[in-house]
Amino acid sequence: MNKKLKTLLEVMPEAIFTSGSDLRDHYTHIWKMQEGLDASLMITPENVDQLSVCLKILNDQDITTVVHGGRTNLVGGTETNSDCVVISLAKMNKIIELDPNSRTITVEAGTVLEHVHEAVAEENLIFPLSFGAKGSAQIGGILSTNAGGLRVLRYGMAKEQVLGLEVVLADGTILSNLRKIIKDNSGYDLKQLFMGSEGTLGIITKAVLKLREKPSSRVSALLGVNHYKHVIKLLKHFDSGMSGTLSGFELMWNNFYSTATSAPSLVKPPLSQAYKYYVLVEGLGSDYQRDLERLSGLLEQAMENEWIEDAVLAQSDSDLEWFWKIREDVHVAASQCQHDQHFDISIPIGKIGEEVDRILRDLSNHPKVEKVVAFGHVADGNIHFIVGKSEQNETIINEINDIIYQNLRELKGSVSAEHGIGVHKKAYLSISKSESEIALMKTLKRTLDPNNILNPGKIFDL
Amino acid sequence: MNKKLKTLLEVMPEAIFTSGSDLRDHYTHIWKMQEGLDASLMITPENVDQLSVCLKILNDQDITTVVHGGRTNLVGGTETNSDCVVISLAKMNKIIELDPNSRTITVEAGTVLEHVHEAVAEENLIFPLSFGAKGSAQIGGILSTNAGGLRVLRYGMAKEQVLGLEVVLADGTILSNLRKIIKDNSGYDLKQLFMGSEGTLGIITKAVLKLREKPSSRVSALLGVNHYKHVIKLLKHFDSGMSGTLSGFELMWNNFYSTATSAPSLVKPPLSQAYKYYVLVEGLGSDYQRDLERLSGLLEQAMENEWIEDAVLAQSDSDLEWFWKIREDVHVAASQCQHDQHFDISIPIGKIGEEVDRILRDLSNHPKVEKVVAFGHVADGNIHFIVGKSEQNETIINEINDIIYQNLRELKGSVSAEHGIGVHKKAYLSISKSESEIALMKTLKRTLDPNNILNPGKIFDL
Repeated sequence: MNKKLKTLLEVMPEAIFTSGSDLRDHYTHIWKMQEGLDASLMITPENVDQLSVCLKILNDQDITTVVHGGRTNLVGGTETNSDCVVISLAKMNKIIELDPNSRTITVEAGTVLEHVHEAVAEENLIFPLSFGAKGSAQIGGILSTNAGGLRVLRYGMAKEQVLGLEVVLADGTILSNLRKIIKDNSGYDLKQLFMGSEGTLGIITKAVLKLREKPSSRVSALLGVNHYKHVIKLLKHFDSGMSGTLSGFELMWNNFYSTATSAPSLVKPPLSQAYKYYVLVEGLGSDYQRDLERLSGLLEQAMENEWIEDAVLAQSDSDLEWFWKIREDVHVAASQCQHDQHFDISIPIGKIGEEVDRILRDLSNHPKVEKVVAFGHVADGNIHFIVGKSEQNETIINEINDIIYQNLRELKGSVSAEHGIGVHKKAYLSISKSESEIALMKTLKRTLDPNNILNPGKIFDL
Repeated sequence: MNKKLKTLLEVMPEAIFTSGSDLRDHYTHIWKMQEGLDASLMITPENVDQLSVCLKILNDQDITTVVHGGRTNLVGGTETNSDCVVISLAKMNKIIELDPNSRTITVEAGTVLEHVHEAVAEENLIFPLSFGAKGSAQIGGILSTNAGGLRVLRYGMAKEQVLGLEVVLADGTILSNLRKIIKDNSGYDLKQLFMGSEGTLGIITKAVLKLREKPSSRVSALLGVNHYKHVIKLLKHFDSGMSGTLSGFELMWNNFYSTATSAPSLVKPPLSQAYKYYVLVEGLGSDYQRDLERLSGLLEQAMENEWIEDAVLAQSDSDLEWFWKIREDVHVAASQCQHDQHFDISIPIGKIGEEVDRILRDLSNHPKVEKVVAFGHVADGNIHFIVGKSEQNETIINEINDIIYQNLRELKGSVSAEHGIGVHKKAYLSISKSESEIALMKTLKRTLDPNNILNPGKIFDL
């Protein structure tokens, strides 16, 4: 262990310290389970005051510090090296207060998402943010990466679920605004600096999260569509007709749907595999019978307008489960290939049809590409690709990146809708952000973290 | 005119310059119509490049610069003095693009809110933000103060309506991110710095605004309630039962309702003036008959649960207009008093009943207070007060402020839910924000505007 770090153990004996083989043998990144965690020391503080003292010492000694939540990040945002100290929030995982009147829950940043879901269910409330990694992902990581998921259309991204935040700055300053109020225009909205900045400007330690009433009815339908212009018409049609209850409008390209409903997948196709697009519509409401009738009426109108080739309405809970299993099993495609690359780009909604056609065509012409599936939250303009390849090396990775990203600058899209930049997308940041924006990001980083100790080298290099 | 300013006219002859008596005779603040605008010069640039050149020169010469939109600010946020230059955005008022597929409108910051409403109506879309000053307020001012209004519950505050922003920094740098995408996690969300910071960190010049489908049905009911605990139960009841369509849940205290439905007001009371609270519920949906039946059913349940003393359902457009006129005529009370003071505080929802009782009691004991009305967006925790007084001086103003604000620190509320801090609430900022938060605000101000030229002395003093 670095000699400097010994100061820490002397000053703060009550925090938990792990190093050497204890660290390498017991901690990994979720996506690199075979490799032990590379770091000089892991500190697991039990409260914000301990964390603040540690961080002040680390800052005074210029020691690179990487914060770890559930380590489910997809872009290398929690990557470490042997020189750095890891601060794990695993022991700061208390639910501080659930307030059904204010419809808020106040939690420590190490609280696992699923525990929040379970706690609020008792009050018939929901915390609407959810995704596959909910059993591992922690609130601190979720907020610092502004996570999305399946119901952004209805409820918004992670940052839109936050009323108050407590953060520790690089120099140990505790910045606390744990208010349960929805509206506050008293001065700058400082919490926005820390959400989506991937742990580079401060460490989120507590949050007041906004809760919603639990919907009591869920309806869904799967549509087969052949023209992208009809997908846009259908989005307007269902959004307007289901006014306020539309919670999902997921688009799957034929390659995704066919893969997800063919062997080795055990899931049968609810509709023929003959259409270009499949739209999965979902409504969350309060009156099952009326919601189902309304959705059925909207489907009929869409049929009459010839926007839909075929459609099937979920008539039972098992239908709902069946349809959504198709959309949620995103790893079926990846598992069929030796090497895979994942993308989560944003494109303005009107341009998606044409641009995805171009991308799929270009990918199909690449000699090492074996399989591609495309799907996404089309109402949010967010499209995911999984590209399976027969071979993997840096040149091939870059070629695939170039095919996916090449028009995004001109289209005013984004290289990352949800996952963030981390280290994997750093080279492509300038597609989403102008020079003056990147310059201002760096100015903010230098202002809030002058010694560049917090997750340095993530998002951009100084 | 200051000699330094002559440089400006030489460099930028095409921008419009106004000074001297032209300025004093033709421009005023909306709330001080009797006083001419006090400033050394008004510049009215026609585009962002002109504005950038001007600002660079002003910055190089350390000249205080105040940006003016519609000048409808309620907290002195656009106040000027004879040394400063005013930049008016009145000529930068073009609607650049209305994109029905992306459901966005891109506008220059000088565009008046009502013009946005009119433009999007043609596509059967809405820009949901609205308030009394919509015929004067400009988008730039609305975003830089993060305005609210009546439908925040359903659609959010101003900043939640923004996808992309163009801003000019103090040194003239143009920071442009005019993207029509809903999700973008590529680096820091810089636009958040400029929304709600009251023109102190940069000048907003263009925005991409998010539009929503136009609801085709509107239903409403007015309820008489006697216990605040029932108001909370009713909020949950209607929010859950109207799932996604609830767009208004406005609370009026008896003093407000009685004033608004008694002479000299010409509006009759739809319900007896005997109850402690009046709740105005609104739903925006897509099926009038079903929405009305549902609201009616929810009212019956609430009656059976004894949460409501009496209720009336709007059965026609004229009923809707009648009920909402009561809530929207906020100046009826003010107009009956010689001097009035307005407040827009936030309190956690569970604490509102008790705290407003305390405030009303304390105000009624103040010898100069003649009239008080309380009302607000209770679902957002935002309560307004209008306090009418027989006499006006600084001591009385401060005494009234103290009565309203005295428990907000402890309650973790806010001195400004919507209107901002400006100059009028500067002395009370520390109630809403901690020392370390105010210190970080000042650090950000010094970083983005090192010469302190942009709206200095607003929100805080450096």
